[in-house]
Amino acid sequence: MTTLSPSSSGKPRRATMSDVARLAGVSIKTVSRVVNDEPAVSGETAGRVRAAIDQLGFRPNVGASHLRRGTTTGTIGLVLEDVANPFYSGLTRAVEEVAGTFGRRVLTSSSDEDAAREREMALEFCARRVDGLIIVPAGTEHGYLMPEIRSGTPVVFVDRPPGDVVVDTVLVDNLGGTKAAVTHLAAHGHRRIGFVGDAPDIFTAAERLRGYREGCVEAGLTYDERLVKMGPHDAPSVGDAVSRLLSEQATALITGNNRITVHALRALAGRADRPALVGFDDFELADLLVPPVSVVSHETTALGQAAAKLLFARMHGDDGPPRRIVLPVRLVPRGSGEVTP
Amino acid sequence: MTTLSPSSSGKPRRATMSDVARLAGVSIKTVSRVVNDEPAVSGETAGRVRAAIDQLGFRPNVGASHLRRGTTTGTIGLVLEDVANPFYSGLTRAVEEVAGTFGRRVLTSSSDEDAAREREMALEFCARRVDGLIIVPAGTEHGYLMPEIRSGTPVVFVDRPPGDVVVDTVLVDNLGGTKAAVTHLAAHGHRRIGFVGDAPDIFTAAERLRGYREGCVEAGLTYDERLVKMGPHDAPSVGDAVSRLLSEQATALITGNNRITVHALRALAGRADRPALVGFDDFELADLLVPPVSVVSHETTALGQAAAKLLFARMHGDDGPPRRIVLPVRLVPRGSGEVTP
Repeated sequence: MTTLSPSSSGKPRRATMSDVARLAGVSIKTVSRVVNDEPAVSGETAGRVRAAIDQLGFRPNVGASHLRRGTTTGTIGLVLEDVANPFYSGLTRAVEEVAGTFGRRVLTSSSDEDAAREREMALEFCARRVDGLIIVPAGTEHGYLMPEIRSGTPVVFVDRPPGDVVVDTVLVDNLGGTKAAVTHLAAHGHRRIGFVGDAPDIFTAAERLRGYREGCVEAGLTYDERLVKMGPHDAPSVGDAVSRLLSEQATALITGNNRITVHALRALAGRADRPALVGFDDFELADLLVPPVSVVSHETTALGQAAAKLLFARMHGDDGPPRRIVLPVRLVPRGSGEVTP
Repeated sequence: MTTLSPSSSGKPRRATMSDVARLAGVSIKTVSRVVNDEPAVSGETAGRVRAAIDQLGFRPNVGASHLRRGTTTGTIGLVLEDVANPFYSGLTRAVEEVAGTFGRRVLTSSSDEDAAREREMALEFCARRVDGLIIVPAGTEHGYLMPEIRSGTPVVFVDRPPGDVVVDTVLVDNLGGTKAAVTHLAAHGHRRIGFVGDAPDIFTAAERLRGYREGCVEAGLTYDERLVKMGPHDAPSVGDAVSRLLSEQATALITGNNRITVHALRALAGRADRPALVGFDDFELADLLVPPVSVVSHETTALGQAAAKLLFARMHGDDGPPRRIVLPVRLVPRGSGEVTP
């Protein structure tokens, strides 16, 4: 199981369990059984495996012996909303990369924005004794994690904070992002700026709404609740929200996440009265649309990396108080947000 | 560990390990230790856990007892190129869904199109004793898997077949797809159709090139190797390939996968002499670009589901000869492929 250690990059390669398996003409599973003194391997086969181990000088590494003794499972669990959403798949890749450098692999599970499912997944991962957990929470009650945390399983929340416990959390500057979007649109002369956000019980949605309000105040615009639609999440409901905002004479829109932006763009396609638009979250091809889409951008990779690094710091003994890291966002003007009313 | 069984949908809920943990005021890890008669739990705590088990009528399920005895790890391994690529994240989600119905979780790992890394990941997953493996291969030599397969670890290849072993494989109709694209473009009057494909040692790229050639023959076009560029994979190299094809008087392009299509669209943005274009693989926002992009589409979800279902059939005792499933593709005309020269 030396393959569990970070790749050795150029140094003379140490014999691995798969080298032993190849030389002895058996499976890795069989080598593992012999190394772990498990039954179910014939004496003849076990002898061949031991001879190969001697010949190659194979020595199971520390990680592997921990794995054998059950003090680590070599895995971390990642609970997120939907791995098929590009935002989360980018996050997954970043977590995978960091975990790989520590010889860990990642178990993923999609909660579909269902708090019960999030809880079930997280606790299942604990029952499987993952070495640590990274959670994009769907729910707002996380007391269920406290016994796990107390018994030594580090947990890091990412993108959204936990609801009722204080745990390491990595976020992006949601409030600053929508505030910057309002300021930007107001600077281009817009006075009626609509906001389409996710369900307001989702932390990021609530924070982005707050940033929208604060931006309005700073820009000297009256906050008008008819210009705010919270909750639409699929093509028909976002399309409906966009229509209503346009009928309220909105000349500009802020869309609260990458999914809402895409649905809004589809609803606006072909309309003559297209409003200015700034979307939260960057997305592929935003620059190739007509007009190119201005966005509030943040680094999904940085988000995943920061969460994973924090988790591994905890696994390696960092016992400081819970941290809250907020990563910056930046407004990327591409065209759709730079039109005047 | 009853949380490992498929969700029970409405029936009275059986007590789970987490219910026991909550009632006893301990972590799931501690409950698991007591259930498994492991040391490191004080007698007082163990007594409290056993009382909670009795009170709730908790009974570890079959899956959990298998998990304890080491006959299953409750995981399957998925080795793919890059989980951040939307094609693969869609595939991952589909595999995750099927695995979930069988109480299994998915370990993912990205090979970055590196055969050595693919081998390392696949063998590491075997060393971790996953219950099964799904592989999108980067390399063409898979003899290394034979000892694992013989010792009872089912393996299914998806999107690309294995190189030198015969194992269950799920593919899409690559050849039929590019053939249909050539036929379609020829029907709109194109005689010089360029093809930009991935490296020709990648199975899907080679098959798509073969479909392109066969399509040319059927449409009565002379196959001209100056109209074929194989290998570009990033923005600059795809941009260069596109320029060269246009300077060879190509009036239409077929782009060989979703990444190449996106790079080509970026290279073509703003050019006055835009060729007709059909891309292999559908992608989000293809319909919102100007012109909307015609594609050869296939169901990534169906691909992942078919692979996972085949894997679980093998895990459940299906020992028929290796199967090769080829899923259909269809041409989706949206505009970019329906312009005349």
